[in-house]
Amino acid sequence: MPLPIETPAVLVDLEIAKRNIERFQAYADEHGIRVRPHIKTHKLPQMAELQLQAGAIGITCQKVTEAEAMVAGSDRIKDVLITYNILGDAKMARLERLNDRVSLSVVADSETVIDGLAGYFADKDKPLHVLVECNTGADRCGVGSPAEAAKLARRIEEAKGLVFGGLMTYPPVNGQAKVQAFMSEAKQLIEADGITVPAITSGGTPSMMHADGAPVASEYRPGTYIYNDRSLVSRGVAGWDECALTVLATVVSVPSENRAIIDAGSKVLTSDLLGLTGYGHVLGRDDIRIDQLSEEHGRLVTDGPIGLKVGEQLRIVPNHACVVTNMFDAVHIVEGDRLKDIWPVVARGHVL
Amino acid sequence: MPLPIETPAVLVDLEIAKRNIERFQAYADEHGIRVRPHIKTHKLPQMAELQLQAGAIGITCQKVTEAEAMVAGSDRIKDVLITYNILGDAKMARLERLNDRVSLSVVADSETVIDGLAGYFADKDKPLHVLVECNTGADRCGVGSPAEAAKLARRIEEAKGLVFGGLMTYPPVNGQAKVQAFMSEAKQLIEADGITVPAITSGGTPSMMHADGAPVASEYRPGTYIYNDRSLVSRGVAGWDECALTVLATVVSVPSENRAIIDAGSKVLTSDLLGLTGYGHVLGRDDIRIDQLSEEHGRLVTDGPIGLKVGEQLRIVPNHACVVTNMFDAVHIVEGDRLKDIWPVVARGHVL
Repeated sequence: MPLPIETPAVLVDLEIAKRNIERFQAYADEHGIRVRPHIKTHKLPQMAELQLQAGAIGITCQKVTEAEAMVAGSDRIKDVLITYNILGDAKMARLERLNDRVSLSVVADSETVIDGLAGYFADKDKPLHVLVECNTGADRCGVGSPAEAAKLARRIEEAKGLVFGGLMTYPPVNGQAKVQAFMSEAKQLIEADGITVPAITSGGTPSMMHADGAPVASEYRPGTYIYNDRSLVSRGVAGWDECALTVLATVVSVPSENRAIIDAGSKVLTSDLLGLTGYGHVLGRDDIRIDQLSEEHGRLVTDGPIGLKVGEQLRIVPNHACVVTNMFDAVHIVEGDRLKDIWPVVARGHVL
Repeated sequence: MPLPIETPAVLVDLEIAKRNIERFQAYADEHGIRVRPHIKTHKLPQMAELQLQAGAIGITCQKVTEAEAMVAGSDRIKDVLITYNILGDAKMARLERLNDRVSLSVVADSETVIDGLAGYFADKDKPLHVLVECNTGADRCGVGSPAEAAKLARRIEEAKGLVFGGLMTYPPVNGQAKVQAFMSEAKQLIEADGITVPAITSGGTPSMMHADGAPVASEYRPGTYIYNDRSLVSRGVAGWDECALTVLATVVSVPSENRAIIDAGSKVLTSDLLGLTGYGHVLGRDDIRIDQLSEEHGRLVTDGPIGLKVGEQLRIVPNHACVVTNMFDAVHIVEGDRLKDIWPVVARGHVL
């Protein structure tokens, strides 16, 4: 029976999402790690509430406008970390309004960013908490050495209007040992300078079940774990039955014996490969490869006969769940094969 | 001087867009080809009006909801071709309402799709025009042979509520000879069967200046030509000064001498590679490679010193303009370095 949902659509199985939340929370509780989920994966206040209810201490956002949408969507969200260098007075004004409403922290990895925040917050009533972002090997943002981290911690500590909030990193794959080494040294240097390090926060779903490999970190920020996706299944981190987010698509053409076209292309599945070949996994059909996407078409190919009919519905686990969430104004909440609700993705498309 | 625009943002230079429209319209007029631009690139009624004003006979959309948004946004849009197999009563009802308002055509490449349309439109006052989609080598949708095209033309012709509208294809790269061969044979077969072929429509920006290589086609559907992008520059189809769409981004981190991070990641530039290496071109900086994107960060690397400062703005030509348009609720209309207007992208995110 096809689902009574117009395709293409994003389905989120609530029971699976809840199980995924509980699984990591139990692990974190066991190891004394505080959980601060990254909401980029779901962009839904309702999901953040489930994470908080399970024991999360707050949420992580990447952008100011994303944080605004989440806080506006739930009065249970009271503690927000924005893991981003914020620049410019327009964004500062948004930060100030958020800071008046919740416990807010941001990060910085340069004197320029710290001085920008300090210049704005110096004369405000409520100071802003700032963590130093550290590069433990992912080679994106972050200071390159514990000594630099200590230098920036001192600069934050001395700035009127700012409070030093600790250290933050997004580790490289299998990077727990690097996190432990970098953060231990940075913490030691900062404490030797007479400054307390209130939190050390690390993250990433791929290595979350090894978070205890960096005991210096007090907090962990997993994102994708709530939904999982093909990239995590391919890394052995999750099984297909732990993938809460799927794309519902319809076969619109079967132009040859071993080729079919679905109504989900790059505007739905996105072109994110994350090191994989192909653009998603058709549930129940290991033999099908999604080998090509145009904007509104996905091409499915097989070595043998593809055996699909025009009009047939398929469920697809995308390579990367987070970016698919961002393509839709709303998601369909299901439990198994039953449609339960439709939730607008209130933090979608917020890039500022 | 930085532009007074919060980043990341999409900028569209109106003068460049107008020149791009005029250039192809002049070529098409010279060769007696009717122009029916694909609006997927801009998703803006205002841009469609500029295309119609220059001489386009109507527009092309890929999805029903996209067509709805465009028609609602401009009463000058009176002729719409949706180059998609439409299935299911919910979408048919939308088609019917659109068909009552404008000259509407859709395509079909199977008996299942034709019979679905015929079943819905049989008892309606106004018939729906249906073209047969042909596979001339792109191996996506489309019937595989002229004989199959003729068979479906007959089926449409005989269906109550449907009118045969002609033949449609999206050709492979450098595929003019294939279009000419397939379409000539199909036309001959259909006319020999006593059926008129009102239009033969081909498309694609990459080969648009060779559209005269398939004189059997009466109509052409370029999309990206209005904005151009890095993929078209790399194919030699356009120059950087003909790229109307750029992404304005800010350097948020310069963590090492040859690495900088901007506030535009895959949620802005998208992961579309289109066969290229890297995720975009920084205008004026041929030496910079955008070698890695995460959702909110783009990583810029150079062999020598990168010479960028935190807070500096950059303009980036993305690999693929159309998909970037789909990531933003609004675009900033500029002329050179001056901000003229902000236009909401009314047909963004319409996947149904």
